[in-house]
Amino acid sequence: MTEHSHRPIGVAVLGMGNVGAEVVRILLQNADDLQARVGAPIEIRGIAVADLGKARACATSLLTDDPAALVKRPDVDIVVELIGGIDVPRTLIASALEHGKSVVTANKALLADYTGELATLAADAKVDLYFEASVAGAIPVIRPLMQSLAGDTVQRVAGIVNGTTNFILSAMDADGEDYDVVLAEAGRLGYAEADPTADVEGYDAAAKAAILASIAFHSRVTAGDVHREGISSITAADLASAATLDCTIKLLSICERIVDSAGRQRISARVYPALVPLTHPLASVNGAFNAVVVEAENAGRLMFYGQGAGGAPTASAVLGDLVMAARNKVHGGRGPLESTYASLPIAPMGDVNTRYYVSMKVADRPGVLATVAGEFSARNVSIATVRQEGAEENARLIVVTHRAPDSALSETVDALTELDSVLSVSSVLRLEGTDD
Amino acid sequence: MTEHSHRPIGVAVLGMGNVGAEVVRILLQNADDLQARVGAPIEIRGIAVADLGKARACATSLLTDDPAALVKRPDVDIVVELIGGIDVPRTLIASALEHGKSVVTANKALLADYTGELATLAADAKVDLYFEASVAGAIPVIRPLMQSLAGDTVQRVAGIVNGTTNFILSAMDADGEDYDVVLAEAGRLGYAEADPTADVEGYDAAAKAAILASIAFHSRVTAGDVHREGISSITAADLASAATLDCTIKLLSICERIVDSAGRQRISARVYPALVPLTHPLASVNGAFNAVVVEAENAGRLMFYGQGAGGAPTASAVLGDLVMAARNKVHGGRGPLESTYASLPIAPMGDVNTRYYVSMKVADRPGVLATVAGEFSARNVSIATVRQEGAEENARLIVVTHRAPDSALSETVDALTELDSVLSVSSVLRLEGTDD
Repeated sequence: MTEHSHRPIGVAVLGMGNVGAEVVRILLQNADDLQARVGAPIEIRGIAVADLGKARACATSLLTDDPAALVKRPDVDIVVELIGGIDVPRTLIASALEHGKSVVTANKALLADYTGELATLAADAKVDLYFEASVAGAIPVIRPLMQSLAGDTVQRVAGIVNGTTNFILSAMDADGEDYDVVLAEAGRLGYAEADPTADVEGYDAAAKAAILASIAFHSRVTAGDVHREGISSITAADLASAATLDCTIKLLSICERIVDSAGRQRISARVYPALVPLTHPLASVNGAFNAVVVEAENAGRLMFYGQGAGGAPTASAVLGDLVMAARNKVHGGRGPLESTYASLPIAPMGDVNTRYYVSMKVADRPGVLATVAGEFSARNVSIATVRQEGAEENARLIVVTHRAPDSALSETVDALTELDSVLSVSSVLRLEGTDD
Repeated sequence: MTEHSHRPIGVAVLGMGNVGAEVVRILLQNADDLQARVGAPIEIRGIAVADLGKARACATSLLTDDPAALVKRPDVDIVVELIGGIDVPRTLIASALEHGKSVVTANKALLADYTGELATLAADAKVDLYFEASVAGAIPVIRPLMQSLAGDTVQRVAGIVNGTTNFILSAMDADGEDYDVVLAEAGRLGYAEADPTADVEGYDAAAKAAILASIAFHSRVTAGDVHREGISSITAADLASAATLDCTIKLLSICERIVDSAGRQRISARVYPALVPLTHPLASVNGAFNAVVVEAENAGRLMFYGQGAGGAPTASAVLGDLVMAARNKVHGGRGPLESTYASLPIAPMGDVNTRYYVSMKVADRPGVLATVAGEFSARNVSIATVRQEGAEENARLIVVTHRAPDSALSETVDALTELDSVLSVSSVLRLEGTDD
């Protein structure tokens, strides 16, 4: 159906970085298509930038360094927030919503902690708050979870949602290089920031896990609820070891519905590097690509794969949200907002059942395996496989467990480090993506 | 946000087969969750079945054999059509829309030809017409294409969207069995219908290609616009041959935006079995699974993977649509309907650039290769690889071409069959999923 003419929809863009510049380019370049899809022209009312003097590929008359005024303008219907950070965009988005503007943002750090506050403002103003670009770039994940699976019961979301760490781990796996070497290379190629902490220590992946868990389980999960471990201690030896077990190592964001023996439901949200069998679909997601696997009661296992970062792919997700928000301005109605009715509590990491991979240097003498195995069995942890490698000062023991409460596993590792026959525990990683 | 109380949303379910029974089960079983997500209880007003006497897992008071009366009932807000066929559901859906009911359907055959008519009725009544379940079962494809990618320019959609043929081709590849043997096996296992024509001859995949192309390119594409070839002539030898080229064979539904030298855009929509390199993501989609790869200007390549058929997975997609339609009844607004503003014409198959794989029995004498190669070059078709196999009466020539207009390729094959030195052309297949 061709839509009939409607007054133009005014858009304010906050931030003209990598993504902002692409959003502006597409808005101008595809104006005719976007108008046909929305049922009204989309017009940029202003672009807020920090430095008015910097050369940009857009009309300078649109530029402003007063975003607070821009988001309140009566001729602005939708605000696209691409500034990043927390405090400044939080205030701007709140102001925009209070003034009846719909908001599209890619800001995962902000959303991970303040979706509740912002969604309440959006609900009061009967406007949209969309954030498809906040998780996994161009890959549609938020909308499928919120809408396509709205009639299903999601059991688990597990994904590779940070391109920097996936680039680093993929390169370490492919080249056998150590972490520091590959991190430096990632920085040179533009895959890692000057300060890579947010990526390599898992903060970015944890914010995304919080967003995914909130949506998947209709509960409020914030970044602080997410158990988080980074990749900076992963070594070339770990990847080599993983390979001998037909696994690779991936930084996973995992959101799980956990049902205890009394039938009480809780949420586990966690980020850590884990061994993943090479046969698992996430094992072959390499480089800066992202993928999210969703398991739902009726849909079964779904996988979404694509580019998780970059200006144009992220802009594609922003534009999708923008077109839908604009359509709602034209036709009435609005998309679903935060849904927290289930209010499931967060399970502490210790209560989550996981599998451990433990690599240790051991004394090369009889009885060591029995002693080590004794520590596992003392805590009811069942061992799946043991491999003994090397001899004399290079003697190593590699243990892979069956599923057990994470607390029992970590207590076992603590006990192992106390043993005389265990010289050092060189690596402890979890194993994910197996059925048993 | 917990939604405030709203009058119940009444639902009519038409058809109580595999999918209908699952939809009813989930509606009853997850009533509390669905109510919280919609903001109002969802209540089944009636279930239309052909045979009232058959035992069913639902209250018999809900059953009716008068669907025409059911879809008009004033207490019905949404009609879920799962009857199948074309004429009967077409009339029922039209009546439902005319009476202001939103409609959710999984009926690809109907949609492939009548989306235009039905979408017009839905637009006039300002209600929803949703059909996520019509393509690729539980996998969210329609909503991502219509909404998440609403701000992007889709270039290509290529997918494995028929589970029956994928099961057959996967089994032929794995076991080396011939088509008839595997088809019989598929029938025994419930993967093929008693009359498998709609699946194996590509009619089902073509209907889905028409739906996908319509949405992706904002143009009206019907099943008759789709070039269609089935899998019934694929042999075990073809799969063996594909394997020697590091390929497998998949029945693909391909929708492509084609730009000619004058910059004019056209649509190609086609279904055929094709060689796919083992390194391509679609090559590892086996059994009854489905996957759809979308390439868009800004998003890049996305892949969606999951269960393409079955009662519960299809019901999951139906329920997602149902919840969104119910939300719109509660909150106002509606989802996007058919968008045909681009009105791109369909390119005839002959104009589409493809790559051919041609396997032929040849006379074992000098000069045969030169003669064969001459037929290709006479039509400006460039050969990528040639392999000569066997000798004497088993001499074969296997040619893989570069991209060329399909008409030039098929004319070349016709010419080859006329050559004295070509005893027979045993197989002609296209090659997809390569960059060159």
